[in-house]
Amino acid sequence: MCPQAYLLLIMGFQDVREYTNRLFSPNDGGRVGYVTDWFIMLLIISNVSAVILSTVDAIYEPYTWFFRTFEIFSLTVFTIEYVARVWSAVEDDEYSGVVVGRLRFASRPLLIIDFLAIAPFYIAFTGIGLDLRFLRALRLIRLFRLLKLARYSTAVQTLGWVFKDRKEKLVIALFTNGLLLVVASSVMYFIESVAQPGEFSSIPATMWWGVAALTTVGYGDMYPVTMAGQFVGAITAILGNGMFALPASILAAGFIEAAENELDERKQCLHCGKAVRPEDLDEVE
Amino acid sequence: MCPQAYLLLIMGFQDVREYTNRLFSPNDGGRVGYVTDWFIMLLIISNVSAVILSTVDAIYEPYTWFFRTFEIFSLTVFTIEYVARVWSAVEDDEYSGVVVGRLRFASRPLLIIDFLAIAPFYIAFTGIGLDLRFLRALRLIRLFRLLKLARYSTAVQTLGWVFKDRKEKLVIALFTNGLLLVVASSVMYFIESVAQPGEFSSIPATMWWGVAALTTVGYGDMYPVTMAGQFVGAITAILGNGMFALPASILAAGFIEAAENELDERKQCLHCGKAVRPEDLDEVE
Amino acid sequence: MCPQAYLLLIMGFQDVREYTNRLFSPNDGGRVGYVTDWFIMLLIISNVSAVILSTVDAIYEPYTWFFRTFEIFSLTVFTIEYVARVWSAVEDDEYSGVVVGRLRFASRPLLIIDFLAIAPFYIAFTGIGLDLRFLRALRLIRLFRLLKLARYSTAVQTLGWVFKDRKEKLVIALFTNGLLLVVASSVMYFIESVAQPGEFSSIPATMWWGVAALTTVGYGDMYPVTMAGQFVGAITAILGNGMFALPASILAAGFIEAAENELDERKQCLHCGKAVRPEDLDEVE
Amino acid sequence: MCPQAYLLLIMGFQDVREYTNRLFSPNDGGRVGYVTDWFIMLLIISNVSAVILSTVDAIYEPYTWFFRTFEIFSLTVFTIEYVARVWSAVEDDEYSGVVVGRLRFASRPLLIIDFLAIAPFYIAFTGIGLDLRFLRALRLIRLFRLLKLARYSTAVQTLGWVFKDRKEKLVIALFTNGLLLVVASSVMYFIESVAQPGEFSSIPATMWWGVAALTTVGYGDMYPVTMAGQFVGAITAILGNGMFALPASILAAGFIEAAENELDERKQCLHCGKAVRPEDLDEVE
Repeated sequence: MCPQAYLLLIMGFQDVREYTNRLFSPNDGGRVGYVTDWFIMLLIISNVSAVILSTVDAIYEPYTWFFRTFEIFSLTVFTIEYVARVWSAVEDDEYSGVVVGRLRFASRPLLIIDFLAIAPFYIAFTGIGLDLRFLRALRLIRLFRLLKLARYSTAVQTLGWVFKDRKEKLVIALFTNGLLLVVASSVMYFIESVAQPGEFSSIPATMWWGVAALTTVGYGDMYPVTMAGQFVGAITAILGNGMFALPASILAAGFIEAAENELDERKQCLHCGKAVRPEDLDEVE
Repeated sequence: MCPQAYLLLIMGFQDVREYTNRLFSPNDGGRVGYVTDWFIMLLIISNVSAVILSTVDAIYEPYTWFFRTFEIFSLTVFTIEYVARVWSAVEDDEYSGVVVGRLRFASRPLLIIDFLAIAPFYIAFTGIGLDLRFLRALRLIRLFRLLKLARYSTAVQTLGWVFKDRKEKLVIALFTNGLLLVVASSVMYFIESVAQPGEFSSIPATMWWGVAALTTVGYGDMYPVTMAGQFVGAITAILGNGMFALPASILAAGFIEAAENELDERKQCLHCGKAVRPEDLDEVE
Repeated sequence: MCPQAYLLLIMGFQDVREYTNRLFSPNDGGRVGYVTDWFIMLLIISNVSAVILSTVDAIYEPYTWFFRTFEIFSLTVFTIEYVARVWSAVEDDEYSGVVVGRLRFASRPLLIIDFLAIAPFYIAFTGIGLDLRFLRALRLIRLFRLLKLARYSTAVQTLGWVFKDRKEKLVIALFTNGLLLVVASSVMYFIESVAQPGEFSSIPATMWWGVAALTTVGYGDMYPVTMAGQFVGAITAILGNGMFALPASILAAGFIEAAENELDERKQCLHCGKAVRPEDLDEVE
Repeated sequence: MCPQAYLLLIMGFQDVREYTNRLFSPNDGGRVGYVTDWFIMLLIISNVSAVILSTVDAIYEPYTWFFRTFEIFSLTVFTIEYVARVWSAVEDDEYSGVVVGRLRFASRPLLIIDFLAIAPFYIAFTGIGLDLRFLRALRLIRLFRLLKLARYSTAVQTLGWVFKDRKEKLVIALFTNGLLLVVASSVMYFIESVAQPGEFSSIPATMWWGVAALTTVGYGDMYPVTMAGQFVGAITAILGNGMFALPASILAAGFIEAAENELDERKQCLHCGKAVRPEDLDEVE
């Protein structure tokens, strides 16, 4: 940190803001920006691991102080990151107004995720609404920090593109599967609720069976016992095997195609060594 | 509703019938027909949701009056829709006879579905055969209204085409899977019925296990416990994984192809904004 | 039957044998052969249905006389069919010797199946070895009659071709899956047998869990409870999802290709109306 | 063995070493090398079978002497094989130094596997650390001998190439699935731990459910019982069906392609009759 702090002191205010902006712009921060990226990614993953491990009593109870200190440290870093991003945003011509520009920048999806990753925890510190349920919910909200990874992860971006590209086909497949679930569950309810009124108590309750049968999970907590019910259950399982694999096949075809077309043709940025996609270049030029 | 009612009054009888016919013809009702389509689709989905929710006692009991009122309202709308469709059908040259034309129109599959969506409920109102079993069955029949969606849904239509197009391959795959089910269940019955005569009591009973094993649902209510039974069960699961995915793969290949060839090349109708397929255009010309 | 019987009487011995041979030759029996084919196919399917239904006590006990009569009838027909096939085989130049030719004809795979479909039942009638276990096994052997369908079913033939065509790839995939099963089951046994010595009692016993996990059937009769066991179980399930779908994908790809290349290009025989494949024509010419 | 032993005696030292080297070089041992290969493969498979069967008490206890003798025999053969390989390695120009060359040869992955397949058992014979836990672990280590098959198996090699070739896509798919597992398990824990604090006791514990749901194994030992939990469980199962099939599809596509491109085009070696891939030829020239 020392050489960086030294740099900030001898540079003028304008230079500091410009440097900060470059630091947090993807593909444009040079070597230092590369290090910042990896540091924040590591911190996000450590944070999520901490949330996961903190639910194990045998780990959380003896190390409570560590989890608390780590949370305060993470919150500080994410706050500095957020403030620095919003403060230096005006360097970009697109967000040039001192207040309006920064507000427009702060309302971008990725910045809203950054905001949600820190804001709720300040409410907790002020002591407003500090009941147990809220504190419980806070832990879950901390998982939102995973979404911050979207800025760095090409995996999530590729998946986003595939979903967009195959949207229409996915909607058709999901709609058909929804129909199948409604029909299978309704028919099963009318057949099986006589023999097992406790398990197959209503159509929404039977839908839990329907999902388990159609996706072939088959937990075994609900299953038909009458001959008619088992016949419908057999048809449902066979149809589910055929129809619930459709979204998977559509996604897989899209994903394989996207990975072949786009990931293979991408080039490395000469400045930061990061992968650059043709679309990214078009946007900048 | 007011401007429409006003229009009906100032137009002559002929005009009213022509206007009604246009209103219910897909892709030919202009802006009003578009609204009618969406209104009926919404009503169908609300109806199915009502059937589903009405099976939950905690929801049905305090709101019985709402479910009854909504059913009467839906029945009225579907009756008006059905009568209007049949009455105005004679406007179409294809169904020009006053009685014969209307009967021929009423015997089309989509119109029979429309009829089944209303007729049974009038029987219920007349009080004939009003025992509990019949009332129970009525609720299930109300789900038939979902089939009315087929008129509007391209998803169901696309699926229909795919099934037709791949019929031969699907028949081969299903026949082979049927053979596999019969053989696996029979062998398992002869092996396992000695150790578990209660569960594996007959070949049809063992088929319930067979479907669960071959589709990899695996409820866990029936499974072999002898070594020979587990060996056959292992072979069955491995074969099932390979063979029962065949219809899924055939459907998926057909579906992806159909979606690519046909949905992507379809054009929008200039009059109603709806998607029009090349086949549709050929039929009209 | 009358016109056929009449025909046999007025024809000479040579003609009867030639006619019989034509009757049972696929694609060469004209209209009568077509009827014979369908009659035997129907009888096979009825036989298998009878075997399946006869295991249900509630059906078998009141109708025992029917099942017995039907079995005697089927056995008679299949015997006549077998004798007629072997007797008339000498008409074919390939099997021209009176004894040697018929023996060579009888040792073809399809004829052996025909033999196995009748021979064991004559042993039962002679009363040799008539203990209960043998009678039980006879019922299972009756299912072999399903294999007689292979002569008529293009589905089974297509599948046979696909298996042959993709044999090498299937062997690689199955060998890899075998390795995966051995490794996963062995590791799981060494980890889990300490906590659950009853369930995970040996590696072969753990393989039953391994197959259920890798094929994603998951009966729920065996599952790891220790943390290390669940970790290995999770890896196993994820790998199984990826690897045990390979034979399915290979078969599906082969099946779809075979169906497209071969079934679509086949032509109808002008004489019998049956589908003829290019290979069939080459063989005859 | 006799003619071989005779040969070794009449040949000089140099010739023996050269002959030994040729014997263990794949594709270069002529007819004798071919026999050696098959003998070692058979011994590996017998060894693994012995490990598997030795865990069944009913088989191990009466035949303990056989399992022990077979282990000593295998260990002797594998030791001779390892020593012969390392000793004769200097014949190859690449590993020409008497000590350095042999050490470089011994540090190749396949040779390390060979070493691990024998070394631990000598420690056991020396009596150092002979507690029960160590002896238990030895049995598991014996399974490492399976890895020795990698030298001979084109299946494992093809799979290795596919993994390498599709590495990037597999990493993206696995990363996305990891995210899905973390999010689904965390959300389920926060919803379901109130109703079932024993089963859904922490996020890592809930991940066991998450894997079973996403891979559609569904053991049935853990499942949500609250309505909110079942809703999240349904979404999880549907997403899992779509996303956890991705690595399978990527592998399958790569495997089928690799099998088609490479296995079909391979040629037979004129000397040993083994399959030779274009890459293998390039490496030698």
